[in-house]
Amino acid sequence: MSEANLYYEDFAPGRSFALGPRQVTTEEIIEFAREFDPQPMHLDEEAGKRSILGGLAASGWHTSAMFMRMMIDSYLLRSHSEGAPGVDFMEWKKPVLAGDTLGGSSTVLESRPLRSRPGIGVVKFRHEVTNQHGEVVCLSENSIMFRMRERSEVSA
Amino acid sequence: MSEANLYYEDFAPGRSFALGPRQVTTEEIIEFAREFDPQPMHLDEEAGKRSILGGLAASGWHTSAMFMRMMIDSYLLRSHSEGAPGVDFMEWKKPVLAGDTLGGSSTVLESRPLRSRPGIGVVKFRHEVTNQHGEVVCLSENSIMFRMRERSEVSA
Repeated sequence: MSEANLYYEDFAPGRSFALGPRQVTTEEIIEFAREFDPQPMHLDEEAGKRSILGGLAASGWHTSAMFMRMMIDSYLLRSHSEGAPGVDFMEWKKPVLAGDTLGGSSTVLESRPLRSRPGIGVVKFRHEVTNQHGEVVCLSENSIMFRMRERSEVSA
Repeated sequence: MSEANLYYEDFAPGRSFALGPRQVTTEEIIEFAREFDPQPMHLDEEAGKRSILGGLAASGWHTSAMFMRMMIDSYLLRSHSEGAPGVDFMEWKKPVLAGDTLGGSSTVLESRPLRSRPGIGVVKFRHEVTNQHGEVVCLSENSIMFRMRERSEVSA
């Protein structure tokens, strides 16, 4: 496990963190769907082809979960994150199909200290998940709380 | 598999569909977290107790996925759903802890025919996921598309 070295102060507006790459397999699409979203286009190749999604397609919630894992691997696990209260919006803009490779970015829109919890700041992100064609498949914005650097660390 | 018998016309504003109940187990919290959100408070009981979540807590994305499954079992799988373009917002308002029992409701806020796709209508819902204490743990709104009844079915 890498050392946590990202604090609130490191998430300056405009800074961007790359996501992925992450391969999407047939097996994981079906496995997730069986447990959480057992609709035909997420379970069966032929049903997917017949649907407007055009192939075996990941549940939107599976795409969101894969996006979470890409954030974890890119910057969250090495940050002093204090969690997120939710998502402002999330758009599943294009189908995520078996064989796709996901990437994208999280970009800081704004940040501010949290008045109610001294030592904690809130960072608002715009997140784009893209496929191998450069198309945005999932677009969202949300705010994540991070601990601030101890004063001792910067001035001692 | 039950027959699909819910069409756009069946989602009248004010109609509400019960969700759950669904037990949340330690094992599934850890399994989901290992794959999608490997942060200490989702992986380890002691780490969860030390965090502001107060115990081994489900990832917000896991709660969202369980919410999806409750919608599936309550009304989506027996509907002529054409999918959802995303979520307008989602708030993870309280921790979902191992041993909790989730329930809640999806209530229709409004509905309208989709001009760009004849025969399809859009239904906007407010979704509340609650725990066994009646507290709302996850609040969201989103729109889902449904096929309309064939004219032949209602007038022939």
